[in-house]
Amino acid sequence: MLNELSFADAAAAIERGDITSEKLVRDCLDRIEARDGDVQAWAFIDPELALAQARACDKAPERIGPLHGVPFGVKDIIATHDMPTGMGSPIYEGNMPGYDASCVALLRAAGAVILGKTVTVEFAGMAPPPTANPHNLDCTPGGSSSGSGAAVGDFMVPAAFGTQTAGSIHRPAAHCGVIGFKPTFDTYGLHGVWPAAQSLDTLGFLTRAMEDVELIHASLLGRPVNLERPSVTAPRIAICKTHLWNIVKPETEEAIAIARDVLGAKGAIVTDLVLPDSFDELVGARDVISSYERARATAHEWFNHRDLLSPQLQKGVAKGFGWEYDEYKHAMKVGADRRRNLDALFENFDAIIAPCTAGEAPPDRNSTGDHTHIGMWNLLHVPSYALPTHKGPNKMPVAIQIMGRYGKDDALFDVAKWVLEQLVPA
Amino acid sequence: MLNELSFADAAAAIERGDITSEKLVRDCLDRIEARDGDVQAWAFIDPELALAQARACDKAPERIGPLHGVPFGVKDIIATHDMPTGMGSPIYEGNMPGYDASCVALLRAAGAVILGKTVTVEFAGMAPPPTANPHNLDCTPGGSSSGSGAAVGDFMVPAAFGTQTAGSIHRPAAHCGVIGFKPTFDTYGLHGVWPAAQSLDTLGFLTRAMEDVELIHASLLGRPVNLERPSVTAPRIAICKTHLWNIVKPETEEAIAIARDVLGAKGAIVTDLVLPDSFDELVGARDVISSYERARATAHEWFNHRDLLSPQLQKGVAKGFGWEYDEYKHAMKVGADRRRNLDALFENFDAIIAPCTAGEAPPDRNSTGDHTHIGMWNLLHVPSYALPTHKGPNKMPVAIQIMGRYGKDDALFDVAKWVLEQLVPA
Repeated sequence: MLNELSFADAAAAIERGDITSEKLVRDCLDRIEARDGDVQAWAFIDPELALAQARACDKAPERIGPLHGVPFGVKDIIATHDMPTGMGSPIYEGNMPGYDASCVALLRAAGAVILGKTVTVEFAGMAPPPTANPHNLDCTPGGSSSGSGAAVGDFMVPAAFGTQTAGSIHRPAAHCGVIGFKPTFDTYGLHGVWPAAQSLDTLGFLTRAMEDVELIHASLLGRPVNLERPSVTAPRIAICKTHLWNIVKPETEEAIAIARDVLGAKGAIVTDLVLPDSFDELVGARDVISSYERARATAHEWFNHRDLLSPQLQKGVAKGFGWEYDEYKHAMKVGADRRRNLDALFENFDAIIAPCTAGEAPPDRNSTGDHTHIGMWNLLHVPSYALPTHKGPNKMPVAIQIMGRYGKDDALFDVAKWVLEQLVPA
Repeated sequence: MLNELSFADAAAAIERGDITSEKLVRDCLDRIEARDGDVQAWAFIDPELALAQARACDKAPERIGPLHGVPFGVKDIIATHDMPTGMGSPIYEGNMPGYDASCVALLRAAGAVILGKTVTVEFAGMAPPPTANPHNLDCTPGGSSSGSGAAVGDFMVPAAFGTQTAGSIHRPAAHCGVIGFKPTFDTYGLHGVWPAAQSLDTLGFLTRAMEDVELIHASLLGRPVNLERPSVTAPRIAICKTHLWNIVKPETEEAIAIARDVLGAKGAIVTDLVLPDSFDELVGARDVISSYERARATAHEWFNHRDLLSPQLQKGVAKGFGWEYDEYKHAMKVGADRRRNLDALFENFDAIIAPCTAGEAPPDRNSTGDHTHIGMWNLLHVPSYALPTHKGPNKMPVAIQIMGRYGKDDALFDVAKWVLEQLVPA
């Protein structure tokens, strides 16, 4: 079925004329029809609206752009002019913002079909979503880009947007067994993306093949696609257990150990990185920044619709309004100082591999899992991937996380692609 | 008339019970009724909606917060749940976003009355607004916070929000003879503020008294108001002519020369700062960043409603989509590098005084004036004020610009207040 094609393969097949966008979109819609009653990855799907876009691509006299005719899912905190944008909150049920977010407009201009809106945790926060993990319906898909993780992992759509403030791209990517990509902070414009915490929010996406990343990334930046990347032979890779190693589960320990051994055997120059103790402050600092800024971003709902916020979010906003401004400023300084420290450390290697989630997706639909392993790096603003390299004791996906230097997204892409090829040969 | 009170004086008078919010708001509305046919500072005013808020304050059993009952103007790119938000564009005429921007919700929570929406240049860009300069109707009020400058300068409202990407707070402040305040980049949350360029956009406000700044700033940060500020005696002030001195008009030369002499005589330690040549790149780099990011922020309108964009904006967006990504990244690096350089220079002084606009407001309603003097500092992300200290040959206001160190907004407030007191004694 065409829904199993990767984004890049689907784009190439359409370009060659081997398949139509309409058939591809139909196969995705069929998969959703068959599975979404259980998985609940989609907040909004209108098959006719999706098919109309696909037929318009098929009938176009020339290719619209490099994403011509390929469907894409949009997290439901991201504005779309032709579909409601509900933020996962009853306050915004049926909300029509009247415009496309910058990222959506750019994908459409590159030829993508906007398939529908994927479930977000309420305002990209912590409350449990309706979505299930497609690999085991009793498990969480992770959050907050829950629907994007589940939809891509279940072959309902080849790629979808996610946003990350702590671990909201990489956690669902890890738990659903797909690739998560988070570029350097402030790489993509956030216009039309509902904020959680503006010093942390980063737009990225989830997909099933590394080639997809270059294709989508180039369209969002407005630069030519370059799939002829330089070849990587002996990347310098630092293995970093972090100060959170004590909360890592055996399957993640194993994933990191295997990565260490295999990559070294394949030619990588592998070293161990022990971060200075001052990096221990990152998790706490991120939490202060996130809740301080989230409280303010949620001020309208807090003062006007408090009873429609989940108990989890009410608690988070109350906490955020409780910080002293100087505590927030101190936390911001911790982030800025550690960013400088990390950049200096990056003189010595090309990428860092660290735990992504604690382990497999928890068998708990009332949780979205642990985000601390991801959140500490997110405050550092560096580009990163969740790479699905491993399986845990319950045959559920386990990821490693790989980080690059600030602003060096292309170099990280090349190393991450090499790493995934070594660890999960085609 | 009560509309002539400063924001802080009005707040104090209401707190003492000397005046009601309703009477204050009525006097503002009367001024608008009398003058706005000529000035055209307001995009939306509903007197009954404003008066209802004022009466609710007057009837409240206790003070809502430190801004209790005082009216505030909101630039019309900032979302309000009960008033349309038109972006100065026919595309968004009558647009109801359905929520309050973070900054609006926080002001309401502190007790402010949202008087109405002030005219913005189309998407906070460059097209001429309908607004006139209240000091001379044949002159521009400056832009893009044109309505906020004109309304505050014409005593229609004591304070109003502005946003700055190049010079959009300080230019209208300078041309309309009021104080412009732009905090350190990323100080106030931007949720609900329509973006122009996310690496530059900064929310601030325009007002007529320095005491107002502390009052409003504290409410937006969520910290106690501290009007008992440390006294300033011998601030170290650098006078910086910048590489743009050749395009400064005589009235600005004079304003800077007088500031230099008077502040020195009053006890400041005045030095001259010649910026390294590398700072010459700032104007060009800011222009690349602004147009690259603006093109992407305007993607929806560009691809769907291009004929409803002004010729100026169409030109700007086309330019923005024309930059290579590497050119944009280079410009971003120029900004980051110069920020580090400037921070090191700030070891030697407490504030920098530099030109604000080239001179008086141009006698041209089809221009919003020059923004390069302001824009170069805006890319440096430091806090700054436009201080109305002088009059030009046509008796129009002339401002100086004063900058503080990144993140040291309180220290800059204290110095700027001292500077204004010396140059414009009460």
